[in-house]
This record gives sequence, structure tokens and C-alpha cells, in this order.
Amino acid sequence: MCDQHDSNGSGSDSMRPGRRQVLMAGAGLAVAPMLASAVSGDLAQARAASAGPVVGMGPYPAHAYAAATASSGLAPMQIQRRALQPEDVLIDVLYCGICHSDIHTARDEWNAVMPTAYPSVPGHEIVGRVAAVGSAVTKFKVGDIGGIGCIVNSCLECHNCQTDREQNCEKGASFTYNTPDTISGGHTYGGYSDKIVVPQHFVIRIPPGADLAATAPLLCAGVTTFSPMQHWKLARGQRVGVIGLGGLGHIAVKLAVARKAEVTIFTTTPGKLADAQRLGAKEAVLWDDAAAMKRLAGHFDLLISTVPQAYPMQPFANLLKLDATLVNVGAMDALQGISGLGLVFGRYSVAGSLIGGIAETQEVIDYCTARGIKADIEIVRPDQINMAYDRVVNKDVRYRFVIDMASLKQA
Amino acid sequence: MCDQHDSNGSGSDSMRPGRRQVLMAGAGLAVAPMLASAVSGDLAQARAASAGPVVGMGPYPAHAYAAATASSGLAPMQIQRRALQPEDVLIDVLYCGICHSDIHTARDEWNAVMPTAYPSVPGHEIVGRVAAVGSAVTKFKVGDIGGIGCIVNSCLECHNCQTDREQNCEKGASFTYNTPDTISGGHTYGGYSDKIVVPQHFVIRIPPGADLAATAPLLCAGVTTFSPMQHWKLARGQRVGVIGLGGLGHIAVKLAVARKAEVTIFTTTPGKLADAQRLGAKEAVLWDDAAAMKRLAGHFDLLISTVPQAYPMQPFANLLKLDATLVNVGAMDALQGISGLGLVFGRYSVAGSLIGGIAETQEVIDYCTARGIKADIEIVRPDQINMAYDRVVNKDVRYRFVIDMASLKQA
Repeated sequence: MCDQHDSNGSGSDSMRPGRRQVLMAGAGLAVAPMLASAVSGDLAQARAASAGPVVGMGPYPAHAYAAATASSGLAPMQIQRRALQPEDVLIDVLYCGICHSDIHTARDEWNAVMPTAYPSVPGHEIVGRVAAVGSAVTKFKVGDIGGIGCIVNSCLECHNCQTDREQNCEKGASFTYNTPDTISGGHTYGGYSDKIVVPQHFVIRIPPGADLAATAPLLCAGVTTFSPMQHWKLARGQRVGVIGLGGLGHIAVKLAVARKAEVTIFTTTPGKLADAQRLGAKEAVLWDDAAAMKRLAGHFDLLISTVPQAYPMQPFANLLKLDATLVNVGAMDALQGISGLGLVFGRYSVAGSLIGGIAETQEVIDYCTARGIKADIEIVRPDQINMAYDRVVNKDVRYRFVIDMASLKQA
Repeated sequence: MCDQHDSNGSGSDSMRPGRRQVLMAGAGLAVAPMLASAVSGDLAQARAASAGPVVGMGPYPAHAYAAATASSGLAPMQIQRRALQPEDVLIDVLYCGICHSDIHTARDEWNAVMPTAYPSVPGHEIVGRVAAVGSAVTKFKVGDIGGIGCIVNSCLECHNCQTDREQNCEKGASFTYNTPDTISGGHTYGGYSDKIVVPQHFVIRIPPGADLAATAPLLCAGVTTFSPMQHWKLARGQRVGVIGLGGLGHIAVKLAVARKAEVTIFTTTPGKLADAQRLGAKEAVLWDDAAAMKRLAGHFDLLISTVPQAYPMQPFANLLKLDATLVNVGAMDALQGISGLGLVFGRYSVAGSLIGGIAETQEVIDYCTARGIKADIEIVRPDQINMAYDRVVNKDVRYRFVIDMASLKQA
């Protein structure tokens, strides 16, 4: 753990008073738009980046990459980031990971459940440098490194928000892209952009020493796989299977190995088998290896499915010990082929898990930085996003693309 | 609880030494067939019922009702119960409940998963009087009342058996009907019969004062709904929904009310709505009551689905609180329409549960007898089984048929 870097504290229960102060400070958000003109004149409390291009408190023009339609691919687009409200932090984006959810959104693949609003600027694995802060910001100063994951706003007052489940805000969380922007109107734009403005509560502190590019994917892929290990209490010596070895899966393996669990990887890609040892897994198994699937029946304490679409799941449920759980963190469509008989006879559970709250996101960042856990990444330029999307879909990345967003600003 | 009646003790952890003694005594079962001829001569240790028709130690001819084929309906058939082995108890069956599983089996409706072996004698909610006991039996004496649920044998040595999960015996439990009979060969015959022979470990003590006919259904329907309330720790004041108000469902309601939970019934049958108050539920809701389904979103700590086949389950999963569980105890086919998105956003679990072990079956019988909890039953004669089956399928029973098996003996 790295809590010594976490001086203002939203990362753990012991830090809660600090977080509560932030919550109380944030309670003024609802009336903030009315105060915007007054605030924007409050330059005495603004601390603009001495080296940056920030002038006053915004609004800020920003370069972005956006999908115009489901089939257009992504192309440069000019967007605007709002003027800073008292709780807001302006981030100059340095790196943004490419999550499979970005692709589903850009291509409108969530179906009717979460239709895409265009133009769409994806990106929710964001690391950048604080370029300016609003008048009430206490968590960051200009020059600090901050991270933004999947959530950029919530009511902070409901039961779920107050229990660190902002992703389940009873009034509806604002996700980093493709949800209504309750402050500026329209819909939210994500991290494929050289600037972003986010309330301080939703900005994660990135500890000194972190590898910034390789830490970015932890803000979604990391917390998404860390959270179920915490909730289902994956312990030393337990057997965990990670289904799907991609952006989420390879981080899940590293996190489980760090807990001293015995990790088995299930992949459809023969070329990934050789990575098992390097990642610290005990073994890697191809989905169609019938002998291994038979040998591993009843073997696992926990299975984490990171595959981003539905697939016949019962062959994996059969690998659970009695009372064990298969947690889906990838597929959003209807799950396939789960046998009532199988659940009944094994008292198995099939569950899901959605990223994590802000405190848990801070926790995984601190946990990973302290242990040197980071994503295996390939850095691309913004103009390579479409190529990268195709390679992700073709399972041709080891294991996460990260976009060098600073190069966009310089371009 | 009624443990004071439970003098030999398999019903609770504190009774475990007694159960262990039974296990040790039972360890000789594997070689028992070789000793059968010697044992059958060991009349000095047999305690035959003075008033009954038992002669020596068997084998015993028995009257039964059997299905000859999937479409034949049930008709009288003569079967034979084995000669008593040292651990065996001969029961003169008094009552046997009609479980929907009986119908699925008689009609070969489990599909390829559990094909029916014919002739098929269903019945696993059996209450009767002990008519004779084998030489090593310590748990019963002739004249005692015993109950038999869904399990009649298991290895008693594997990890699952030793942890009171005989239904999950690693070598395969013998269920009361339609599984291989590892002692006599062929397949097991259930309780639609005037006699049955079962090792003492698998016979439940029925406490004095129990309503024998109305207690029979507790041996399957009771433990099937009690076990998930125990495992998922349904507590006073929590909100539980019972999906399906039939044989299992109405007992689930009574058990949940006894725990002081707040119970909501979900039924497809308008005629059953009026029973909610009598059963102690807070309310009953029709599945197609869209307003109620909307009002109850995110309402429940636990949902127990007792419906004996798959149906679109997501509308009910939507009623779960965050982190809550929907437990299927009825459907054995592939579950329908469970949204990955729903599981993910709510961190819901969809789980299953299979009856309970012998200790837990004893526990629910003691629990219910002490509280006067029993099934709502309609008693039928054996020659009315086919009519009863049709009425169960047509949801025309309030709420469990119980066959008066003693009348078969007299016929």
C-alpha cells in the first residue's frame, strides 16, 4: 500500500473524515451553475499552471478524437471543456487507455441498453497533470498528477454515494463518456482529448513513482478486476480462474498473483499460452481443451470472466467448487446457457461487478503503485486509434493500448 | 427449535459426535453385500414390529405406484425392498407428498440431463413408521416415526459428506428415486410405496407432536426453501420475495414469516392473491403487474424462485438491492434472459440451491415442528395420483398433495 502518499485521503476507511469534508464541500454543486459567473471572476483563488496554456478559469477549447457515427471511425474534433466550478480540476491529459467499452460505445454496440450519443469521445482510463483548480479544491494543486476512471460525477448524498458506491448513485452517476452531462448539458466527453474538467472528488491521486502510461489502464481495467477480488475475498492460496486474457484479464492475473492466489488463465488464443508463466499464472488453458476442462471440474474458488461479450458460460461454471462464484465483469448482453441444474447442484452463484467506487479506485492505484503492478501496454498516437480498435477486436494486443494524448496537444 | 427430541443428534453441530459415530458405523456399508447372507441370519439383533407384517429381515414385497413410460400415468406395481443390512431401517410408509419433481421424473421431463429409468416409482417426501431395524441401528427403534427426503445413500466419507453436504457426495449421492441403487442394483424406487428400506443415517427423526401428513412435504419443499434462507442469512426485518406460490413457495413464505422477514409473493395466479394475508406475507403481486414491478425495483435482500421451469428472470433480478441474490431452487433447464448488464450494475448474484444435507433436513423438521409450521395439504388416495398430477400442472392445488400410502397397504 502506498497510503503515505495519500495525504488528503479518500482511499481508505481511516481516511473517511477527509472524504466527508470533500463531500460537504461538494454539496454546493447543485447551485454551482447559478454561481458560475461569480466564480469565474474569482481569480484570486485560482492557481493556474505557470508553464501551461491555461488562461483564467475557462471555458477551455480542447482537441479530441470523436466518432461521428457508429461506422465513421474516430477523427479529430474540437470540443469545449467547461469553466471551472469551485470543486473542479482541469487536467491536461497525458495518457488515455483504450478499453473495449470505448469500442462498444464508439460503434454503438451496447444495443438499446446504452445507445451511443454522437459525436462520441470515448476514454475512461485517463492520467494527466493538473493545470488549474477551482476555488474550493483541496485535494490537488497545479502540477499534481491525477487520474480519472469511469465516473466524473454523482450526487454524493444518496446512500450509495455515501457508502462509496458512486457508480450506483441513486440519482444516476455521470460516467466519463456517453451519459448526460448534468453540469454543462449534452453528454459527457471522455479522455480521447487533451483536456478534461472533473470535480476533485472524482479525480484519483496518482502516487509519485507511478509509470504514468502503464498506470492509466488501472483506472478502469484495474479497479474492475480488483473490486470483485475484494468483495468475494480472494485469499492467499485460493484458486482463481481468469476467463479471457486481454486488457482486463492480464491485470486480473497480476492482481490475483499479488494476493498469492493460484491463477489459471482461460484463453481462446494459443499465442497467449506462453504468457502465463511471465504473468505469474500457474497455467493457461485453451477453452477447447476438453481434457483440461474435465480435469479442472470443481476446482475454483472464484472465476472472473473478463470477456466483453456473452458466450456459453456453463462449461466454466462447472469448474467452480461448491458455493463458489463466477463474476462477470465484461459481458453486458444476456448471459448464455447458464444451467439451472448446474447452479442448483453446486449452489454456485453467477454474479456481476461494475468497476468500483472512487475510494476503491484510489485503493487499487495505491496498491499497484506500491507493488509495481502495471498494465502491459503498447503506446499509440491519437491518429492510430482506429487501427488500435481493429487490433483489439482481433485480439492482437499485448495487452492494452494507451494513447499518448500529449502528442495531440503538440500536433 | 426442538432439539430436545433429537437425542441421538444429527441435527446440529453440537450433536456432531453422535453423527460421527453413525458415520463410523456406516463405514462397513461397502462390504455389506458380501455379508448379506450372514446378516440376514442374524435375527437375534433384529427387532421386528410386533404388530406389523414383517417376517425376519426381508427382503420385503411392497405395493407401489409406478410409471411404466413417460406417457403411461402411474399404476399399481409390485416391487421388492431389500433385506435389511446392519444400518438399514424398514419404514411402513404412511404419507408421501407429491413434488413437482415427481411429475418431471414420471413424465421424463428432465430431458437429457436426468433421463428417467422406467418403471419409475417417484416420491421423496415420505413419513412412516419404523417396522424393523438392522443389527447396527441405534437411531431408531421399531414404532418410531421416521421421514425420508430426497437422499437415501451417499459415501459418508468424502469431504462433502463429512461436512453435511450428502446431496453433493463426491462419489454421487443416491437420490430417493431415479438414481442407480448402489446396494441392490437397478435404480432407486421412491415413496409411492407402502414400504421402503433406507440406511438410518438418511432417515429423519419426526418429533412427537408433528402432524405427520402435513410434515411430509417439509422433507423436500421445506428443506429446499429453508436451506437458502440459512445460507444467505435471511434475517429479521429483511425483505424477501418468493417467486411462485406452489408447494415450495407457500412453505417458503411460512418459513420467511417465521424469521420475521417482510415477505412479498409473486404469483401468476390471481386466485392466490387472497392467500397472502393468511400465509403472513406483506403483499402478493401478479407477475404482470407492471406498476408493482416498477415500485419494487431495488427492494429485496433475497429472492427465492420456486418456479419449476425457466422463465424470463431479469424482471425479478431488477427487484434486488445492490449485492443481493436471486436463488433458483426450481428450474433445472437453462436460465432465461439474465442480463449481464443487470448483474454488473447491481453486483447481483443469481444462484441455485439443492435441498439440504441430512443434518439440515433434521433441523428444518425440528424447527417447523416446534413452531407448528406445516404444509397446506390435500390428502389423496394412491389411485388419485394421476388426477393430482394434472391438477399440480394446472396450478390447482392449495398447496401440496399428500398421498395416504397407508390406504394402499389396506387396499
